[in-house]
Amino acid sequence: MAQQLQNRRVAFLVAPEGTEQVELTQPWRAVQEAGGQPELVSTAQGSIQAFDHLDKADTFPVDKVVSQAGAEDYDALVLPGGVANPDLLRTDSDAVRFIGEFFATGRPVAAICHAPWTLIEADVVRGRRLTSFPSLQTDLRNAGADWVDEEVVTDRGLVTSRNPDDLPAFCAKLVEEIAEGANRTAPT
Amino acid sequence: MAQQLQNRRVAFLVAPEGTEQVELTQPWRAVQEAGGQPELVSTAQGSIQAFDHLDKADTFPVDKVVSQAGAEDYDALVLPGGVANPDLLRTDSDAVRFIGEFFATGRPVAAICHAPWTLIEADVVRGRRLTSFPSLQTDLRNAGADWVDEEVVTDRGLVTSRNPDDLPAFCAKLVEEIAEGANRTAPT
Repeated sequence: MAQQLQNRRVAFLVAPEGTEQVELTQPWRAVQEAGGQPELVSTAQGSIQAFDHLDKADTFPVDKVVSQAGAEDYDALVLPGGVANPDLLRTDSDAVRFIGEFFATGRPVAAICHAPWTLIEADVVRGRRLTSFPSLQTDLRNAGADWVDEEVVTDRGLVTSRNPDDLPAFCAKLVEEIAEGANRTAPT
Repeated sequence: MAQQLQNRRVAFLVAPEGTEQVELTQPWRAVQEAGGQPELVSTAQGSIQAFDHLDKADTFPVDKVVSQAGAEDYDALVLPGGVANPDLLRTDSDAVRFIGEFFATGRPVAAICHAPWTLIEADVVRGRRLTSFPSLQTDLRNAGADWVDEEVVTDRGLVTSRNPDDLPAFCAKLVEEIAEGANRTAPT
């Protein structure tokens, strides 16, 4: 059980600022504890500034710049929230291209809170059942999603949750989906 | 010219936190300098915490709680931006109802930067030509708006701009529209 993500590389894509810290650190730890290798991907080199709601929290070093990354480098993608984070990410064409590649190749993606805004930009929510922070439900429905108010929702490899309170369920489900997804896509 | 908004009351609707300060203070001053009476309307009593991008800036006292306010109390509405501000406002049913009343009664509305997210929630952008901070253009188009990348756009009493750099043009146009709109709707 502790090694179900062994040799699995998981990209955590965030903007240089605005990420809700706990939505980065808790899924990161869940991936590590399952034996996986998380990597922090952002739009610029250096470090990212995380937030505790609207207060600045800690900084984290960037492992890879998204313009030089592709989904083929990873087994899965995690998208933390924070209101300003996806708002910045969705304006970066490399970030949007990177997200789209995970969907195009069937790799698991987990998005929490405000992160699904980036999924709208990648145009991958049409016909999908998902949840998010409630403020963006109209944007998601207008983009074609089947938005529901549930702790954690899984639809064809996409795991979504609403807010930090949902993190235990979100983390458990994303580890499960990454383990399954990696098995499906791993060369045999 | 200095008195073109004499006796005109202008509501500035913002959330308790997250408003981009300069997008509140500059239009506020423009309304005052034209002889109008700005009032700060929010979802709770007390004061609001404004921001300079993602850093906390000054606080401002709330004049009126939106649950006790209606468009009939005002001649026009200004919606400042800041990414977290409209994200909070759009989840408040009284704020959404209040915004809708201005459109239903033909009163001028001016919205800048991220503020048009609240217009999506009030479902008043369908068929309207407008602009915003570029990150929400897809959400606005999905909601039926004709989104354009221009400094200031006016469509049937709705004035929109993209970001703080557009404030001079935004302020000049909103004063003009409020002066015209107030004239159209004033009892004779």
